[in-house]
Amino acid sequence: MKKKAVVLFSGGLDSTTALYWALARGYDCEAVSFNYGQRHARENTSARAIARLAGVKLYEIALKFPWFSSCSLVNGKLPLPDVSLSKIGSGKAIPSTYVPGRNLVFASAGFSLADAIGAQAVVLGPNVIDYSGYPDCRPAFYKALARAAAFGTRSGAGGKKIKLLTPLIKLGKAEIVRLALRLKAPLGLTWSCYSGGRRPCGRCDSCKLRAKGFADAGVPDPALAAGRPG
Amino acid sequence: MKKKAVVLFSGGLDSTTALYWALARGYDCEAVSFNYGQRHARENTSARAIARLAGVKLYEIALKFPWFSSCSLVNGKLPLPDVSLSKIGSGKAIPSTYVPGRNLVFASAGFSLADAIGAQAVVLGPNVIDYSGYPDCRPAFYKALARAAAFGTRSGAGGKKIKLLTPLIKLGKAEIVRLALRLKAPLGLTWSCYSGGRRPCGRCDSCKLRAKGFADAGVPDPALAAGRPG
Repeated sequence: MKKKAVVLFSGGLDSTTALYWALARGYDCEAVSFNYGQRHARENTSARAIARLAGVKLYEIALKFPWFSSCSLVNGKLPLPDVSLSKIGSGKAIPSTYVPGRNLVFASAGFSLADAIGAQAVVLGPNVIDYSGYPDCRPAFYKALARAAAFGTRSGAGGKKIKLLTPLIKLGKAEIVRLALRLKAPLGLTWSCYSGGRRPCGRCDSCKLRAKGFADAGVPDPALAAGRPG
Repeated sequence: MKKKAVVLFSGGLDSTTALYWALARGYDCEAVSFNYGQRHARENTSARAIARLAGVKLYEIALKFPWFSSCSLVNGKLPLPDVSLSKIGSGKAIPSTYVPGRNLVFASAGFSLADAIGAQAVVLGPNVIDYSGYPDCRPAFYKALARAAAFGTRSGAGGKKIKLLTPLIKLGKAEIVRLALRLKAPLGLTWSCYSGGRRPCGRCDSCKLRAKGFADAGVPDPALAAGRPG
């Protein structure tokens, strides 16, 4: 029987690359995306389109925690950080876009689905840039969580630990772009911008990091090329 | 400033005792209950009434995971286990009422709220009987999860680990009943039955364990006394 994986899937550059990595590794994948009141719920449209293209079952989960409104990624009244690229990833402070315990909850939901369907792995896309700022993207966090899931799931209790795979954990954005191109991931369909407009704003952290990744990889961003007139 | 705690609160005997324990310990408590499609969503009515009585803020969170339908606690078409008391807690098998990874997700949500409001602790009510059957009630699971949360939250990253407190972890049901009585917890308002009817069925695991707990403690169950004619 083909091995199964659950992919935490936002429709962005990173998780799309992680999904195509898992498919290339031979996993039969099921994906989960969340609507948690994020400004950029537009990313869910991308997740849907990519999952359809990849032939992957997608669970779209509404998860509204009122306390997420303390964070600028959810609360549209708070300004998004507009930091210079030199500061991104400096590890000096946790950005206001940090959603309290979000990845703990999301990854736990991934383990929950994996336990329900008997999947061998949960796949996520955190990477070098993420965990320089966000505590819930750190390798040590994921390692500890996998251990908790080994105790707290039916699979784990039965001696079949569900693996937590983070294939991008050592990669920078340019390396992720290159890996995505090798895997023929549909980057033109991905969405990274935090602002929630109809087009990427080009100014938020996420847009800047993405732009730098494509520039460093020496390729144009197909999501921009596709959407722009001319 | 008064110390804060987040209490995972279903409105049942155990979590109500845990809530009153935390209040007695001087914690300013905020509670979270979940509607996850459980048969006994009736428990949420109890949670609301008890939180109101205790003057505790309650977040009622809808969390619908389609894959929870694999479990008899959610899927009304599956039979509830009707095992003899002698088998409950024997640790032989995971009951069909096990909801895949549920407590991993719920406790993670508790850490998420704690991180958002700067609480020092997350309080839950798992106990001896629970973890004989449910992997996500085992002490080792909670210990590992607290470690994951220490890495994956703002509080933890800042050196202020959020404690995970399980005051009932070594108690049997009779001891929980006695503790609840000492704490003057409103046991008449609590709800334990899994069946989802208007009155406790008296036949499900949860009803049987509760009845045995009160019998062993030598006191009548006020929830039964209150609801029954005569």
